[in-house]
Amino acid sequence: MNVTRRDLGITLAAGSLAGIGLASAAQELAPPPGYHVMDMGGLKHLKPDKPERIARVIYPGMTPLDLVGPQQAFGYTQGCKVDLVAESMDPVVTDIGLKILPTMTFDKMTGPVDLLFVPGGGKGTIAQMSNPVVLDFLNAKGQSARWVTSVCSGSLVLGAAGLLRGYKATSHWAVREALPLLGATVATGRVVEDRNRITAGGVTAGIDFGLTLVAKLRGEDYARAVELMLEYDPHPPFNSGTPTEAREDTSRFATRFYEPLLKSARAAAETARTNGRRGEHLHAV
Amino acid sequence: MNVTRRDLGITLAAGSLAGIGLASAAQELAPPPGYHVMDMGGLKHLKPDKPERIARVIYPGMTPLDLVGPQQAFGYTQGCKVDLVAESMDPVVTDIGLKILPTMTFDKMTGPVDLLFVPGGGKGTIAQMSNPVVLDFLNAKGQSARWVTSVCSGSLVLGAAGLLRGYKATSHWAVREALPLLGATVATGRVVEDRNRITAGGVTAGIDFGLTLVAKLRGEDYARAVELMLEYDPHPPFNSGTPTEAREDTSRFATRFYEPLLKSARAAAETARTNGRRGEHLHAV
Repeated sequence: MNVTRRDLGITLAAGSLAGIGLASAAQELAPPPGYHVMDMGGLKHLKPDKPERIARVIYPGMTPLDLVGPQQAFGYTQGCKVDLVAESMDPVVTDIGLKILPTMTFDKMTGPVDLLFVPGGGKGTIAQMSNPVVLDFLNAKGQSARWVTSVCSGSLVLGAAGLLRGYKATSHWAVREALPLLGATVATGRVVEDRNRITAGGVTAGIDFGLTLVAKLRGEDYARAVELMLEYDPHPPFNSGTPTEAREDTSRFATRFYEPLLKSARAAAETARTNGRRGEHLHAV
Repeated sequence: MNVTRRDLGITLAAGSLAGIGLASAAQELAPPPGYHVMDMGGLKHLKPDKPERIARVIYPGMTPLDLVGPQQAFGYTQGCKVDLVAESMDPVVTDIGLKILPTMTFDKMTGPVDLLFVPGGGKGTIAQMSNPVVLDFLNAKGQSARWVTSVCSGSLVLGAAGLLRGYKATSHWAVREALPLLGATVATGRVVEDRNRITAGGVTAGIDFGLTLVAKLRGEDYARAVELMLEYDPHPPFNSGTPTEAREDTSRFATRFYEPLLKSARAAAETARTNGRRGEHLHAV
């Protein structure tokens, strides 16, 4: 059921390889099963024969930028059916107070999904690592989803549902050390792909992740256009985006700030690991 | 009423200037009126004596990433009172369908605000350029706000309210040519500051903008910590974030795609310019 970049038929045309250079080469698209090629004002891209179903799990205490970064990238992607799935239809209060409305509840979402996504957060995310409603939903959908994905500490929830066992994955830098307790191997890339698992780093990595996925679902030329529409030419003001890049005192402060969260993440991961029921039925994934 | 970076007392200590280099120098903070210095686990920062009031205008068709980028940066900033202000308390449907709940209506928000903010979008944004409720609110608050700000095409709404007349400003690349019709001079920086007007480029520029503002309100050391917490180490996958960086066919497609929007923006700007009532009372700003 997994679809790789190769399956999606994204191949460079022989002509363009012989051309003025790979960097400026337009792509030749051969549509994989379930897709056809569309031309929109000269922009050739893949279009699904029927809209892909995207399930984004949302929950109290989540970090809204983890969700909105990738969703904005998909917002320009026609032919998707996106649902924000929660335990109830009540507004979800995120970690900065912003309230988002779900479109669907877990129990109402029947059948397989093409893309499963979990955003991260702080304490609210750790709480989901032992929330049976969320874990059962991820479990059920994760086994057949074409893509199983997360941004930030959302990977801890995927991991608690057993979906990262035997996979390379990443998370927010402050908690990624908890991933091995969930059977994953930590990788430090901004967006980490291992077969059909795609996990991204902390918060802002969701934009890189979103564009990566748009390229997979619609072709790279389409994703290039979305990157331009999002004016994604970032200028981080302080060169302080990773613990190694940041000034030593900044890293020390932030590491200490996140210590309690990492401790909770480890404890929750230990509990998830020793949860035999989930462990068993996920060895087969 | 304007507060500049200098007023906020962000000055480098003489000691650090003589040290190992400016890039790694911690800042000495001298609190401006209304602020005091706080030490949180070794992180010295500015704290307001009473919470700053932040008004973020939200409206149908807005681009949620324009709002959530900066708000996530502020989410880690204690001592702010943030309101999402709309015409009614109904959920606001954004340009990608995501529904956000307002916290306040325009008529209920009395008294001055410290920071006024307008996110951008497509057609929905152009509609606000002639929405008297929004323009009157911006008008009223904009004259006394310490900071008057926008991300993306939100600057067109600020401009339609007369708040950019005589100022340098920017917008989403696709519509910034409409700014001169509103009396602004186009500047092409990612985050453009002119006195107390701070406008940012398209969509993703909101993160750079948010961090810039956090530095102003809490000090640069604090903003460095937030940048690390957001893991803001962007890796745009396609080097396609501006019309000049992007591949020629990509730029051509996107420019054509946005042509109708630019046309609407120009028309709305012409209408706003010839609106004498607003024009008059804004010459004094």
